[in-house]
This record gives sequence, C-alpha cells and structure tokens, in this order.
Amino acid sequence: MRCDRVWIKARLATLAEGAPGLGIVEDGLIAAMDGRIVYAGPADEAPAFDAAETVDCEGRWITPGLIDPHTHLVFGGDRAHEFELRLAGASYEEIARAGGGIVSTMKATREASQDQLVAAALPRLDALIAEGLTTIEVKSGYGLSLEHELKSLRAARALATARPVSVKTTFLGAHALPPEFKGDADGYIDLICNEMIPAVAAERLADAVDGFCEGIGFSPAQIRRVFTTARAHGLPVKLHAEQLSNLHGAALAAEFGALSADHLEHLDGSGVAAMAKAGTTAVLLPGAYYFVRETKPPPIDALRAAGVPLALATDCNPGTSPLTSLLLTLNMAATLFRLTVDECLAGVTREAARALGVLADRGTLEAGKACDLSIWDVERPAELVYRMGLNPLHARVWSAQS
Amino acid sequence: MRCDRVWIKARLATLAEGAPGLGIVEDGLIAAMDGRIVYAGPADEAPAFDAAETVDCEGRWITPGLIDPHTHLVFGGDRAHEFELRLAGASYEEIARAGGGIVSTMKATREASQDQLVAAALPRLDALIAEGLTTIEVKSGYGLSLEHELKSLRAARALATARPVSVKTTFLGAHALPPEFKGDADGYIDLICNEMIPAVAAERLADAVDGFCEGIGFSPAQIRRVFTTARAHGLPVKLHAEQLSNLHGAALAAEFGALSADHLEHLDGSGVAAMAKAGTTAVLLPGAYYFVRETKPPPIDALRAAGVPLALATDCNPGTSPLTSLLLTLNMAATLFRLTVDECLAGVTREAARALGVLADRGTLEAGKACDLSIWDVERPAELVYRMGLNPLHARVWSAQS
Ligand SMILES: [Zn+2]
Ligand SMILES: [Zn+2]
Repeated sequence: MRCDRVWIKARLATLAEGAPGLGIVEDGLIAAMDGRIVYAGPADEAPAFDAAETVDCEGRWITPGLIDPHTHLVFGGDRAHEFELRLAGASYEEIARAGGGIVSTMKATREASQDQLVAAALPRLDALIAEGLTTIEVKSGYGLSLEHELKSLRAARALATARPVSVKTTFLGAHALPPEFKGDADGYIDLICNEMIPAVAAERLADAVDGFCEGIGFSPAQIRRVFTTARAHGLPVKLHAEQLSNLHGAALAAEFGALSADHLEHLDGSGVAAMAKAGTTAVLLPGAYYFVRETKPPPIDALRAAGVPLALATDCNPGTSPLTSLLLTLNMAATLFRLTVDECLAGVTREAARALGVLADRGTLEAGKACDLSIWDVERPAELVYRMGLNPLHARVWSAQS
Repeated sequence: MRCDRVWIKARLATLAEGAPGLGIVEDGLIAAMDGRIVYAGPADEAPAFDAAETVDCEGRWITPGLIDPHTHLVFGGDRAHEFELRLAGASYEEIARAGGGIVSTMKATREASQDQLVAAALPRLDALIAEGLTTIEVKSGYGLSLEHELKSLRAARALATARPVSVKTTFLGAHALPPEFKGDADGYIDLICNEMIPAVAAERLADAVDGFCEGIGFSPAQIRRVFTTARAHGLPVKLHAEQLSNLHGAALAAEFGALSADHLEHLDGSGVAAMAKAGTTAVLLPGAYYFVRETKPPPIDALRAAGVPLALATDCNPGTSPLTSLLLTLNMAATLFRLTVDECLAGVTREAARALGVLADRGTLEAGKACDLSIWDVERPAELVYRMGLNPLHARVWSAQS
C-alpha cells in the first residue's frame, strides 16, 4: 500500500476507544497518507507499506498529539504585578485601586490590536507546542464588547495560521460584566444575545459558546438566555460551572447538550447525573485549583462512577491560571485530584477531543484520524505525569503541515 | 578601565546585601573581567570601560545566575512506575513488593557506573540550566555503601566538567538505612563515621555533610555522631530536619553551626530561635511539600520575624520531588508558602549562595563576584514567580566559561 510516511519500532499509546488502559501496542507501526493515519497498530499485523519516508522510532513512545480543551490564551497585558501585590499583603481594594483584576485585562485587551493579541499569545502557544500540543481551544472573553470580542476571536483564529496547530475557538462574551454595564447585567446579556452571537455566527468566528455561571459571573437564568441564542444559531455550548459555588450550572449545561462543563469543584450528585445522561464531558482545571488555593477538589469518584468522561486543560489565563504546560497539568491532576496515569493521558488526548467535539477526527491513534503525533523519549508513559519541569518530547508530527 | 565584556541598557536585580527589595537598578551596567564582575550598578555612575565586547540588553532584566542549593540529582532509575501504582490505589506493601521505595533507587544507583550516573543526571541538569541555573548543590545518599557513595560523589563532581556550572557536593550517607544493616542503624553510623567520611574527606569529594533526621531516617543521637565526625574532618554540615515530625533536628544542626536546615515543615519556636542565633539558613522545599501533599507549611512568619535567611531549592529526587524547574519552585513557594516575590528571587540567588557558604563569591551582582548572570525577557521580575511553564530566559553568562 502506498503512503507518505511510516513510523516503525515505536511503542504506541493509541488511546483507542474500547481498548483497555492506554491502548498500548509494544511493537507498533503508524502509516500516514495526506496527513491522515491509515494504520496504527501492531507491526506484525500491518499491511505492507510502500512509504516515501520511514522513521525508526528506536523504541520511543508515540501518543496522539496533545490537546488543550480550555484556554483563554488571547489577552493583553499580564497580572504579574497584581500577584506580587497580593503576596505582599495588599487587600483586594488596594489591588483594584492599583488597576488589578479582570478589568485590567479587559482594558489591555481592548487597547491591543488583533496583531498585538496574536503576538502576545504566541509565546504561550509556543510553550504548549514545545510539550507536544497539536490542538488547542481558545476563548474570547476579555474584550466584552462587540468590537473587541470579534477582534479576540479573529486573533484566536489567526493562531492557526501562525503555527501549524488546530485551533477551536469559543465565544465567551458572558465571562464578566464590563464596567459600562455596571448594575445592568441583563442589559449586557441583551447585547450578547442580540448583537454579539449573531455577529460571531455570521462571521463563523466561533466553534462554540461558553459562559461563566457564578455569583461573581452570571446567573443560571442569564446563561440560559445565552445558550438559547447559541442554539438558535446552531452553536454548541459549554460552561464554566461550579467553580466557587454550586449554582447547578452543570445541569443547565447538560440540559442544552453541552460539549463540556468545566471546573466543577462544587458539583453535586444531581449535576453528575445530568452530565452523565447528556454525555457532557467534565473538563478539570487543576492549575486554577492550585493557583487560587482551592481546597475542595471536584467529585472525581462520583464522576468516575457515573461514567462521565474526564478531560484536562490548562485554563491558561492571566488571573487564576498563568499556566502554559500540559505536562504540569497532568502532574497536578494526579497529585491534587488523584487521577490515575491512564486518566491523565486520556484527559489531554481522547477525552480532550471529545470535549471539543472533534473525537471523530483526532484524539486517538486510529486509522482515518488526523496524523497528529507526539513522540516521547521516555521508558513508560507514566513519566509524562510523574515528572515536573522536564520535557521529554522528541518530535511532533502535525497533520496541518503535511 | 579595560575589561572583557560590558552589558549595557540592562535593568538589574542585584540582590545586593543591604539594598532594599531586589536591589533594583533601572538603567544598569555590568562589566566583567576574567569571569569576575568588576562593576554592577547605575550606568551613569560607572567608570569608563574599554571593553572587548559590548552587549546591548535592550532593557532586559539581569539577575544573578540561579542557584539550586538542595538536590539529589545523581541517582539511577526513576520511580514513575511506583507513582503510577500508588495513583491506581496500590498499598505501600504492594509497592514494596513491586520493587518500589528508596531501596529501588539504591539498587539502580549501585548497579550504575559513574558514567551512567552522569548520563542519567544530565537531562535533569540541562532542564535546570535551561532556566538560568549556574550553581547547583548535589548530594550523594543513594549508594549507601563506601564504594557507591564515593562513586555518586565523583559523578556529582563530574557534572561540573560536563557542563559549565559550579557544583557543590554534599555527602549524605545518612540518608537511609541500607538493607544489609537492617536492625543495626548504629552499625551503619559506625561505617559512615569510621570509613565513609574519612574517605570522602581524603579524596576531597564533598563540600559538606548532610543527614536525614526523622523517625524513618536517623535519630538526633545518630546525626550528632555524624556531625561530630564531619567537624573533625573540617567539613561543614547541614540537615534534612523537621519534614514529617519535630525531632529538634534544626536545633541540633544549629548547635554545629550548620550552613542550613532544610524542609522544616514541623519546626517549632525553639528551633527557629536556634537557627537565628547560629546564622543557619532555612532551605525550603515547596516541590516536595506539593508532591507528597503535605498540609502543614513551614513556620514562615516565625522564620521571618527571627531574621532567619530563607533559601529555596528543588529537592530534585525520584521519590518525593521529581522536579527540575527552579521557576516552578518559585511559583510553589509563593502559592503554597506565601513567600513574596522578593523573598522568592532572593531564595534562589543570594540566600541560596548563603546556604552553600559561597555568598562571598556569588549570589548577587556585585563587584568581585563570579560573573554568573541570567538575562530575562520579562517586563518585571515578578513574572519569573507568577508564571507556570513559561521560560523567559534570554541568555546565560557563565563565569566558568570565560
Ligand atoms: Zn476558564
Ligand atoms: Zn532532600
């Protein structure tokens, strides 16, 4: 069979659905044609390939390219000074007076051009890419006006041109209340539903619509309006839910068949059941949990027992998770949430693809899927979770480049 | 004045003793000759230099080269499989039966040649170097016999030949009881005092002597014998103290004028007072605290109030801190221990040098010291502490290379 490239003498963690554990193949072979996997499995069961190029992996491990299914990668400025002030004992009022908080990120994002937003995001994206990332979700949510939300989404889309990664964009207008709507959250939701979502949909700038359902964010009734509008425009939804308190956002998301509900530290049993029934993926964000020093982890055992898929993401953002390492995210998920090694690795491959609605196209090493590969200099996959600060990536293969 | 190199248009965090905060110089200049700093300070107060090379730093920040004052970098094997088993719910007995625990590292270390130990340590060292490290302490303690402790220390010394870093070695024979001395810890201490320390001293293989004072390690009485022998051989001491319980190890260390007492989660007021009086540095290890999920942080406020110097280190080791990032260590010290940005950065420069007894020679940007520099692409030093997984190192300058 003709093909472009064959990788031989590889150990595969296929993450194939239905396979036990990581779907391990000890003497594995992958063949690719036109950026697609045409075979991934045992070498001794493979058809004979006539390949233009053969890569000897010398026993290295290959996983699906890593996927980060929840980031706020596009924003202006940073919040390092706010972090410094808080450690020095400043109160929230003092930090607000010094220009801190999400409003400072909104201002810096509004002041930046689209090109400046791309330039600011690229070092963060490059840090993720250096550890094997091939697909990333990027949200808007710091523009908080029609013009600046559109600009942020265009910047997110442009990342896929600047680097050979696959980018899924999410409209998160309902992230925070901009100061010009102070005291009128419903008025801002009107703007989101009447102007922003229609414009985003018309320009095809977003692959999904997200919201922040929380006491300091938006109420379930307001999120319901956003979701209803999204559905009317044919856009799937997801939700920041149950991070700081339990407003039953996950059940609301499930009611709309959400791709994912994210954070979930305060999720209760009824929320778990609703997610399981709807097939909504739980996206866990241990970096934010660590950075804001939460003490209540998500109900992992209940999610497992109910069969809710578990994905992992960096939540990369300037306020609560200035994190640009998926490998460190794996370690935090294991250390802080007690996920197993298999759950961790599935969480940034197969389950992350599921959370983005792209599992049919990527997230596992299976024939027909995009040939996004991460090749690792490790003796066993557990090393990817166990270590902190060591990057054993040997090579990346990007379907977008072939 | 003639010199080899001048760095201009730099912002300096000199960390000079007596200077407030980070010792910041906004329009700074550094001049070096024969690997030594001959000037570091405001450009407009500098003498006129006739430099062979001038480096325009374009406003970048320069800090002293980073120092990791507590690592177990030299060891055979890894413990990723043990980590995986524990996450999957294995008991300590099951892990021991599967060959886990410190004994597994001892066996792998004994089986490795000196060259193999160096080769295994280099990727870890390179990860640290990539983030600006120029000086590192490396302990023995996985050989646990005369032959293999000497081999480990020789491997540690060899790292300074393999890379242009400065290496301080520490003999840690009293790390754990080797199986051949089961039930006879005092007999093993005899071996340490009668054979190991004299051999280490004769070959000048160690710059200090360390021990693990803990219920699962060695008693204060046993450590006292080790310290007495070290003193007789002219070697300074340091101690793993008060990590899991309070055996008053820090006070014991202070009694011997120890360079540092390390870990200190269970340190009490009398230990703090003893350290302050003796001038013993507290080396805090937030990576180990995080990885073993400790919940009681060291008594930071009491240490601060007593004026005990605070240093930070990775504790890089396969069992409790598989960490090879000083930048992540800074973030953990801030996030988990609430150290300020200034304390964090001093902890891996000036105070780390103090903990190793090399403050006269390095650890700050001051004339006369080794010209070990880290040059950073950041807008403010706080970014080095705030971010997780992003490495903004622009360049390193190694005194050992000039
Ligand atoms: Zn988020
Ligand atoms: Zn240690």
